[in-house]
Amino acid sequence: MAAFPWEESNFMKAARRQPVERVPIWLMRQAGRYLPEYRQLREKVSFLELCRSPELAAEITVNAVARLGVDAAILFADLLPILEPMGFDLRFGPDEGPVIRNPLRLPDDVESVREIQEKDLGALDYVFRAVRLARANLPAEIPLIGFAGAPFTLAAYAIEGRTSRSFERTKRFVFAYPQAWRELMERLVASVARYLNAQIDAGVQAIQLFDSWAGCLAPDHYRQFVLPYTQAVVSQLPRNVPVIYFLTGNPALIPLQAEVGGQVVGVDWRVDLADAWAAIGEDHAIQGNLDPAVLCASREFVLEEARRILERTRGRPGHIFNLGHGVLPSTPVDNVLALVDFVHTWDPQQMP
Amino acid sequence: MAAFPWEESNFMKAARRQPVERVPIWLMRQAGRYLPEYRQLREKVSFLELCRSPELAAEITVNAVARLGVDAAILFADLLPILEPMGFDLRFGPDEGPVIRNPLRLPDDVESVREIQEKDLGALDYVFRAVRLARANLPAEIPLIGFAGAPFTLAAYAIEGRTSRSFERTKRFVFAYPQAWRELMERLVASVARYLNAQIDAGVQAIQLFDSWAGCLAPDHYRQFVLPYTQAVVSQLPRNVPVIYFLTGNPALIPLQAEVGGQVVGVDWRVDLADAWAAIGEDHAIQGNLDPAVLCASREFVLEEARRILERTRGRPGHIFNLGHGVLPSTPVDNVLALVDFVHTWDPQQMP
Repeated sequence: MAAFPWEESNFMKAARRQPVERVPIWLMRQAGRYLPEYRQLREKVSFLELCRSPELAAEITVNAVARLGVDAAILFADLLPILEPMGFDLRFGPDEGPVIRNPLRLPDDVESVREIQEKDLGALDYVFRAVRLARANLPAEIPLIGFAGAPFTLAAYAIEGRTSRSFERTKRFVFAYPQAWRELMERLVASVARYLNAQIDAGVQAIQLFDSWAGCLAPDHYRQFVLPYTQAVVSQLPRNVPVIYFLTGNPALIPLQAEVGGQVVGVDWRVDLADAWAAIGEDHAIQGNLDPAVLCASREFVLEEARRILERTRGRPGHIFNLGHGVLPSTPVDNVLALVDFVHTWDPQQMP
Repeated sequence: MAAFPWEESNFMKAARRQPVERVPIWLMRQAGRYLPEYRQLREKVSFLELCRSPELAAEITVNAVARLGVDAAILFADLLPILEPMGFDLRFGPDEGPVIRNPLRLPDDVESVREIQEKDLGALDYVFRAVRLARANLPAEIPLIGFAGAPFTLAAYAIEGRTSRSFERTKRFVFAYPQAWRELMERLVASVARYLNAQIDAGVQAIQLFDSWAGCLAPDHYRQFVLPYTQAVVSQLPRNVPVIYFLTGNPALIPLQAEVGGQVVGVDWRVDLADAWAAIGEDHAIQGNLDPAVLCASREFVLEEARRILERTRGRPGHIFNLGHGVLPSTPVDNVLALVDFVHTWDPQQMP
């Protein structure tokens, strides 16, 4: 028996490209609006209150694992609160997504962006308390995944002020003010690395870095303006903690995702999993890649699509089953349960 | 001197992968809001009125070519009005994008979608009149490009009713009602093919088929649910009219774009042009692929990025320079002029 049973879990084995007894599965947003118990809670408490209540955040985190039978827990939290101690005024409206009241627009604005130091981590203490509570209440064989937004995605939010289709403001900033961009990214790198290390200290076993918006970039621009900073974050995390680097919206960036330095490359559904795996080479695990919309179709279709993905990973260790993005709110819970069950009955040793 | 001087244009030569004297360039939305004269016109006339006035639409089409010195004209029109004679109630609000008041939601709704017959084309006569007027007023060496939305993108609009981020409703329809989807796509295929053939009869020299939203699909889903219908449209167009099949948002679909049957594959900026060209093989021309946001940066940056693209196409005939998507409203006109000039001074014969 290992001192830390989660180290022997199929999730950790897959992240390290070791053979597994069964294919591990977890789902982005597995604790979310598609669950009736989550919706009930949200009727009483706002999203931000949930994120800031360690007890509730931990409860949601743990309950989703119990309900679904998945192989990993992911901390219930949001990508953006890290921007608050950096000086941004973040608001969550009732219907609209998060809005930053003082977005960064001019190169001089970067001067007022505060890099998070050790002493500033107290402002995010509710996250670390949620980690400790969730870890204490999870079964010992279930790893807990911590996470943060990657520097590009956080910078894009800070510049746009809200979600965007074209990320026009962000790109104009990057192209027009390369020196200010570098300064902004360096402050984000240091802040994200401290935030993630504090999550690790509080008790997470793995990290997912979300670059949800980097898919808007050309490969050359990603390489020049983003890759060095994403690498810098990962380089500051302990080697024994698996890092999943997730990016959505551009399969042409997958080879660059592999250069970031994480053990696992997280891909969306826009790419054939076999092609993605070929693109990242032998020395990385892969996570993905079911289209979340598939889970809204019939049970038969869900299982057919899951089989298609699993068949493409046969005979090669290092696949963590997941969606290519978060569970959609209209997803039937029964389909999620059927998917988890199907993935767990798949024989990962069977050769192609 | 050819009977039709446009047949000897660099645009038509590039589309047919013949050597050119200079690299042809045109820009998606080259007649758009970034032009002060267009904004002046729009202060007096709504977008839909512009589209429906053959005189104004032709004038905008022709003036953009004169103003920019580009190598092709693209008809000023919108993707969606074809849905009106098919039974959809299309509205353009003042700020919001187009909205369909009676979106298609249930499989039975497909029954009421009308396939456009020859006799129904009168409802779109303003488009064909604009083609005739624009052709009559363009220099004889400038080809005029007609266009339509591809069946998937039109179907997605008909189902969502407005623009969407996840295309959740569309995918649920595709996955849950494959038979109704087939019926819907067949009606769209016949309608789009008739619409495009009527544009060709009215005087366009090339066609661009816009699949602006198909990038949301996994390659397997594109192949199964979309490719046969896109192929069916192109197969009904005369072989001597070059077809550009444009798709944005998913570089993993580029090899499938080449299977559609058009002479030219139009790509966005998310992919390295050399990689895209390798993916489509030797028997297709390629169009693209500057990020429109680059045009909002400094003139030096614009030219540096244009050079990077041109260097990747050296020594291989068949490149039409374009953006990876439409010109952004905030683009400085001078940057567009500098780009056109730079591309025209590039020596396409110079070997790598």
